[in-house]
Amino acid sequence: MDIKQKAIEAKEASTHLAAKRNEGKNQALADIAHALNTNREAIVRANKDDLEKAEKDSLSAPLLKRLKFDKDKIDDAIEGINSLITLADPVGVTLSALELDSNLELYRVSCPVGVIGIVFESRPDALVQISSLCLKSGNAVLMKGGSEAANTNRILANIINEASIQAGIPSGWLTLLEARSDVTEMLALDDYIDLIIPRGSNEFVQHIMKNTNIPVLGHADGICHVYIDSAADIDMATRIAVDSKTQYVAVCNAAETLLVHKHIASTVLPILREALEERNVEIRGCTNTRQIIDVKPATETDWHTEYLDLIVSIKVVNSLDEAIDHINRYGSGHTDVIVTDDRSRAMRFMDYVDSADVFLNCSSRFSDGFRYGLGAEVGISTSKIHARGPVGLEGLVIYKWRILGNGQIVSDYAGPNAKSFTHRQLNSDFKSL
Amino acid sequence: MDIKQKAIEAKEASTHLAAKRNEGKNQALADIAHALNTNREAIVRANKDDLEKAEKDSLSAPLLKRLKFDKDKIDDAIEGINSLITLADPVGVTLSALELDSNLELYRVSCPVGVIGIVFESRPDALVQISSLCLKSGNAVLMKGGSEAANTNRILANIINEASIQAGIPSGWLTLLEARSDVTEMLALDDYIDLIIPRGSNEFVQHIMKNTNIPVLGHADGICHVYIDSAADIDMATRIAVDSKTQYVAVCNAAETLLVHKHIASTVLPILREALEERNVEIRGCTNTRQIIDVKPATETDWHTEYLDLIVSIKVVNSLDEAIDHINRYGSGHTDVIVTDDRSRAMRFMDYVDSADVFLNCSSRFSDGFRYGLGAEVGISTSKIHARGPVGLEGLVIYKWRILGNGQIVSDYAGPNAKSFTHRQLNSDFKSL
Repeated sequence: MDIKQKAIEAKEASTHLAAKRNEGKNQALADIAHALNTNREAIVRANKDDLEKAEKDSLSAPLLKRLKFDKDKIDDAIEGINSLITLADPVGVTLSALELDSNLELYRVSCPVGVIGIVFESRPDALVQISSLCLKSGNAVLMKGGSEAANTNRILANIINEASIQAGIPSGWLTLLEARSDVTEMLALDDYIDLIIPRGSNEFVQHIMKNTNIPVLGHADGICHVYIDSAADIDMATRIAVDSKTQYVAVCNAAETLLVHKHIASTVLPILREALEERNVEIRGCTNTRQIIDVKPATETDWHTEYLDLIVSIKVVNSLDEAIDHINRYGSGHTDVIVTDDRSRAMRFMDYVDSADVFLNCSSRFSDGFRYGLGAEVGISTSKIHARGPVGLEGLVIYKWRILGNGQIVSDYAGPNAKSFTHRQLNSDFKSL
Repeated sequence: MDIKQKAIEAKEASTHLAAKRNEGKNQALADIAHALNTNREAIVRANKDDLEKAEKDSLSAPLLKRLKFDKDKIDDAIEGINSLITLADPVGVTLSALELDSNLELYRVSCPVGVIGIVFESRPDALVQISSLCLKSGNAVLMKGGSEAANTNRILANIINEASIQAGIPSGWLTLLEARSDVTEMLALDDYIDLIIPRGSNEFVQHIMKNTNIPVLGHADGICHVYIDSAADIDMATRIAVDSKTQYVAVCNAAETLLVHKHIASTVLPILREALEERNVEIRGCTNTRQIIDVKPATETDWHTEYLDLIVSIKVVNSLDEAIDHINRYGSGHTDVIVTDDRSRAMRFMDYVDSADVFLNCSSRFSDGFRYGLGAEVGISTSKIHARGPVGLEGLVIYKWRILGNGQIVSDYAGPNAKSFTHRQLNSDFKSL
């Protein structure tokens, strides 16, 4: 496959797709949902081929589970598309409107980013989800899934392409890349691709980030903290710490380190230990922690580690500010929690911790697009620009500045007799016609 | 200078600066303005040293002009700071507020990006302007100016640092880099620097973009077009074309290519030629253009060229869509103009041209932060994410998600008896205390 040619076609398709109105995009989404439904058998058959090969290759049980795309997963995918149809069009929204002068009006109007490059590991449901998010937001997409799911991905991409193009979406808007080398090529195409979204393991995302000049939206680590302040309710702190660590260990918003204020340590640590060990969590503590509870020692490496497992590190800190410094030093800017009854200490934590999500008195596990009410999640970003934390459709759009004039030239606004600008806010939206 | 150490200090300073309220930042800005005023003589003296060296090195007249930082430039710089003080704080603005459940409230609140790396060529006024923009928006900054302005930049950075730190801004928030190799080092510090803003020539910005994994906000080329549609008012089209080309030729939003619809070409081209040649503009035309007016030939290279000079290329196009395709192919996504009396053709142009600024019936020269009423301009971006076109203070901020809870855990919202989310819009702002 000539990847550069595919990227050029995607760029061309993207300018047409950008101009599609909501109805046209929704019709295409409905047709895709319909096509998935009528092609169930063929999809399950293709997936069976992938599963058989994966079993022969002795893939681990969790990987096999993620690879499976059965009737229930197809139902979920269709439901996801249907709920996407109900969302407002993120494109064409007037973000600001300003009269520059009489009959000279400036509008900032949302538009698609353009061409998105997506690289994701095994799960075929990601293919359906991401391509439908791109379609809804008017973006063209080049995507590469895990090679274990090659058959499933191929049939899904074909179904989506056929249904959407028949519904009037420009062909070339979706390309499935098949070879690993295609990704390397894609990462170099910064003239045609506007944004890369990688979904997968830390190493995988980090590799992508280091090997492209295209902006990347995503996160590598999720080293999240729960800080139990001197003014914390101990019961609440324990519940939040246990939930943040154990509710689902394999995800980026699970807590990896608990920070405990020294004034409360001797009371809370034994309780924490009991609650965590009851859930089979291995505890690794700093020297001060181990003077209070008998646990394994934590080393410098632990503060840097995303366990994604039933392991937690605990550090006793001398002050709120020490907790903040620890988080800003070792954290990954993802999600960090303070448990305290002291509102002004909470505000200091929220102001000074430089993370995408800063929470008072609740579990770190709340940082998620569905829980945030975003409707659909593109991913979670630990970047500091464009979009941060859980990212919904708004991460796939940007804006254009549009001016409607009637012959104005800048010479009239310069020099000794310069006309001046009115800069008056307008309450009207940009009207297409 | 140990650049990495400076970047670490900037990162530390940035978390404190992020928490500064508007009054504190404005006080520091007022103190900087005052210090610039009382140090006029020393500044002019330092600048004289730079000018003398530059003359000895035979710098060109335009470069010498840009290097000059005299009484008037100091006045402008002080005025710029004073107008910045009057602007609203871009930090701490509640962008969205949602009740997730009873006593579980999610707020999206604006915050600084963090640490900004700025590289700019000669003009010392850029140093004052950019550092004060960073301070107002709560960002720490590493900056490198042109070596010709070394003395001027050094005294300005010292004055700004002293005045701001005395006003309570954390030391380390501003570092002036002095050696060229410092920039190379800076571009590799993606662990500490969140955004690079380069200001200078195309080659310079392109070099920066190709040599860092840090996101870059800026623009390399400004290949802007004026398309004169078949339904254009000829008088208006001529005025707009002349203004877009000649009002100030050395800037990125000046037009480089005129596209003329074939139905209007024989009428408009002779008039355009007269108006442009009256202003000493050299015209290079496509074959069809040259069948109507006797001008130099344009080659493929011309469509790619940002002249930044009294030269313009003209192409006759067969249709609106050919004009759109030409712009999307050869343009730089900066500013493109259609002149037409047909509103539906204008909308098609604005929908399909993939540029930061798309204008109907006015000069391309309007794309500018001051004219857009942004108050202060960080730069112009042709990137497709974060900020596009003229960028004001909002390009230096992003947001944090803040949740206020009272003990909620995710286990209660999962499984068979899961509580559900209310996802109710709140009309309240995030209150700090």
